[in-house]
Amino acid sequence: MKADIGLIGLAVMGQNLVLNINDKGYAVAVYNRTAEKTRAFMEGAAADRDTIIPAFSLEELVQALDRPRRVMLMVKAGSVVDQYIESLIPLLERGDVIIDGGNSHYPDSARRTRALEEKGILFVGSGVSGGEEGARNGPSIMPGGNERAWPLIKPIFQAIAAKTPDGEACADWVGASGAGHYVKMVHNGIEYGDMQLISESYHLMKGALGMDNERMAAVFSAWNDTELDSYLIEITADILTTRYDDGSYVVDSILDAAGQKGTGKWTGISALDAGIPVTLIVEAVFARALSALKENRAAAAARIPGPEARFDGDADAFLEEMRLALLASKIVSYAQGFMLIRQASEEHDWGVNYGNVALLWREGCIIRSVFLSDIKAAFDRDPALDNLLLDDYFGSLVQRAQGAWRRVVSEAIRLGIPVPAHAAALAFFDGYRSERLPANMIQAQRDYFGAHTFERVDRPRGEFHHFDWIGSGGNAVSGTYNA
Amino acid sequence: MKADIGLIGLAVMGQNLVLNINDKGYAVAVYNRTAEKTRAFMEGAAADRDTIIPAFSLEELVQALDRPRRVMLMVKAGSVVDQYIESLIPLLERGDVIIDGGNSHYPDSARRTRALEEKGILFVGSGVSGGEEGARNGPSIMPGGNERAWPLIKPIFQAIAAKTPDGEACADWVGASGAGHYVKMVHNGIEYGDMQLISESYHLMKGALGMDNERMAAVFSAWNDTELDSYLIEITADILTTRYDDGSYVVDSILDAAGQKGTGKWTGISALDAGIPVTLIVEAVFARALSALKENRAAAAARIPGPEARFDGDADAFLEEMRLALLASKIVSYAQGFMLIRQASEEHDWGVNYGNVALLWREGCIIRSVFLSDIKAAFDRDPALDNLLLDDYFGSLVQRAQGAWRRVVSEAIRLGIPVPAHAAALAFFDGYRSERLPANMIQAQRDYFGAHTFERVDRPRGEFHHFDWIGSGGNAVSGTYNA
Repeated sequence: MKADIGLIGLAVMGQNLVLNINDKGYAVAVYNRTAEKTRAFMEGAAADRDTIIPAFSLEELVQALDRPRRVMLMVKAGSVVDQYIESLIPLLERGDVIIDGGNSHYPDSARRTRALEEKGILFVGSGVSGGEEGARNGPSIMPGGNERAWPLIKPIFQAIAAKTPDGEACADWVGASGAGHYVKMVHNGIEYGDMQLISESYHLMKGALGMDNERMAAVFSAWNDTELDSYLIEITADILTTRYDDGSYVVDSILDAAGQKGTGKWTGISALDAGIPVTLIVEAVFARALSALKENRAAAAARIPGPEARFDGDADAFLEEMRLALLASKIVSYAQGFMLIRQASEEHDWGVNYGNVALLWREGCIIRSVFLSDIKAAFDRDPALDNLLLDDYFGSLVQRAQGAWRRVVSEAIRLGIPVPAHAAALAFFDGYRSERLPANMIQAQRDYFGAHTFERVDRPRGEFHHFDWIGSGGNAVSGTYNA
Repeated sequence: MKADIGLIGLAVMGQNLVLNINDKGYAVAVYNRTAEKTRAFMEGAAADRDTIIPAFSLEELVQALDRPRRVMLMVKAGSVVDQYIESLIPLLERGDVIIDGGNSHYPDSARRTRALEEKGILFVGSGVSGGEEGARNGPSIMPGGNERAWPLIKPIFQAIAAKTPDGEACADWVGASGAGHYVKMVHNGIEYGDMQLISESYHLMKGALGMDNERMAAVFSAWNDTELDSYLIEITADILTTRYDDGSYVVDSILDAAGQKGTGKWTGISALDAGIPVTLIVEAVFARALSALKENRAAAAARIPGPEARFDGDADAFLEEMRLALLASKIVSYAQGFMLIRQASEEHDWGVNYGNVALLWREGCIIRSVFLSDIKAAFDRDPALDNLLLDDYFGSLVQRAQGAWRRVVSEAIRLGIPVPAHAAALAFFDGYRSERLPANMIQAQRDYFGAHTFERVDRPRGEFHHFDWIGSGGNAVSGTYNA
């Protein structure tokens, strides 16, 4: 018997993926750098499964595979992936497939797709989201790279992936080159945003309304029956009621210093590089960075007093306003995320189908939600939709939320409770819907001090003018000064 | 006669720098890739100056120089700099100095410092700010690199630099390796922030208070007699009253789509990479990016209504509140900028003197202001000052401004006028002075879905815990999932 696919890397995610694939009727050959791990897996979770085949060298792994061979790497992103690829190349033939299912940075996947294409090997860089649990029961899978690989792996990927309520698999081709890992990166960035927005709501409930954990949990549970229905809201409610054996709440024992592993940062850097204002995700990344400065904050708190204002409104009404503010901010965050994906797809000619991306995120991954069905529906209505804020459904939601959103951010400001992501979302919204922004002043300043030139409202775009502001008769062409 | 320094690159900035150096009594040899430009300069601005010596090859330039030779590049950043360095190396001797005065990215300057050190040549990567006018009359100079070069160039640099009101030169050694260009980069990022804050004030005056250009100019002029006294406020007033020959205002003709050249973006990327929450500069960069989406905004404006609220308070009182809000936001921006410089200096062991950086920016550059004297004074009081917000002077300014700041941002939100930089500054301020932030919820979520572990408030830092939230008995060590 030959195996349908080979999997390298038997950490928990790799093991769970193997079990998931095998459950769907596919024979899997497995390899791990340390043989003990392979043996432990074969004697443990894979015991009694005779269609999981252990291999103790890459040669053995490749020999165990049906042609064209499919080899999936579930190893640490970075040089380890390149080392495995180098080792596999001499063992494989033209038309074989290598899939990297780790958290690689998209330029690496683009490079690997190109390099392997020259050797006739089909490379796929695939985002796999959902963690260990998703890997076992149905992850969200975002494959990109050499499109000729897709028919060869599609049946397996769609069999193991999470399914939407309509039964569609959350695994579909994203696009050429680095598209799969790019979309996974933006997914993670959006995840940072969602988590930050929820934590700001939590802060307001606790700080402004003085709610206890059980009441907050009840509110998040209730929100989960609305447009906000999502995994992250659900686990937030669950977290709030989780206690240690001594009865104390786990969440209250956790230090307020958040870590990060880089994908949110990558999203922000990509947005800065592309010139796409993905403000909410960057504020979320920076909010984690500020949280990590715990000692500095403690010192500052002792020295810098805030306002003495207290909340004195109707708490229930404010909670509903908070829900609407969270919803509107979330719409902005996804609108920004899709702006970024569109820009990247157009720049690199990836041909990403935006509605499909929403579908891939619908289940299996951390940001899974009903909301993503609504985004899919918006792109179904208009595949070329320029911005989610212009869709009728999301547009009317935001209209309904707008007043509440403004009151919540203002009240937070009055009370001195930081809501950087909510505030950034609202500022973006007001900027986006402004035909005139004050950037004419910035252009005037740049032309004044650096002769950077400007376009005029009464002249064609692309025509650049300089004004001799200080009467120096200086050159109209910008000098070397950058601003 | 041998020249004291050679200068390569006779664009306007280079020419002006040559004239400035020559005015201070130094003989300068000059070279430009196209000989015509050298001839035109010699027959034009440099006519009648017999201590400016033209050279028509690099050999000729180097031969014209006194030992140790000092060669300054004023050319386009990027590969051109490397090409000149390559060409100069065989012509120079150990102990000679190459200075790059262009807008190079700091990692390039770090690399060049290292590479030239191996050859015994002293490299200096120097930020030079102030544009063409500053180059002629006194720029701000931020040199870094091989410190052994500093005594060799210090007399010239300090002679040509801008001077503070106390007569100190705005040219001093910043630090090793890429420190000079790093500080110049942050300078430019802060410049983005200052310009954005001013443009938001302009937007509020115009949009909320309906002020005309002359009245706005009068207000900015008045602000220039307060703590806000600065070049950018001064030119804003000047811009607002500048008219074309037909009597119409120039600023009103300028398209509200701002350009950028990369240094603001670099600052944001550096902040994300370092994990320092430089939120205001990034919002300023993104505000330019959003302004550039002019067509999208025009389409959105037609479809997305904003609030119908109107300003109905006391305009004069609100203007003073706006001034305080701008001041407080500016303090946050500089606090963030110095946090970033401190992080970089400590990470790279550059030994930057923060007070000196403020001094370098005091005159000559675009962000020159009285404010920078106050920053210098703060670092004089406490050279190890952790954050400007903790300084007594700035702390009390912010306390005085705090109420006004909150009211201005709230009012802008109520009116639907975007003030992303003001709002980001205030959110940072409230986060920074919060001993407890809601990041414990983020850590709980990360541990829930990805077993990322957390620290506890009741246990030592550095001790990482995992809780089995869903009763799976899963591994306490994080898997490969990144979030």
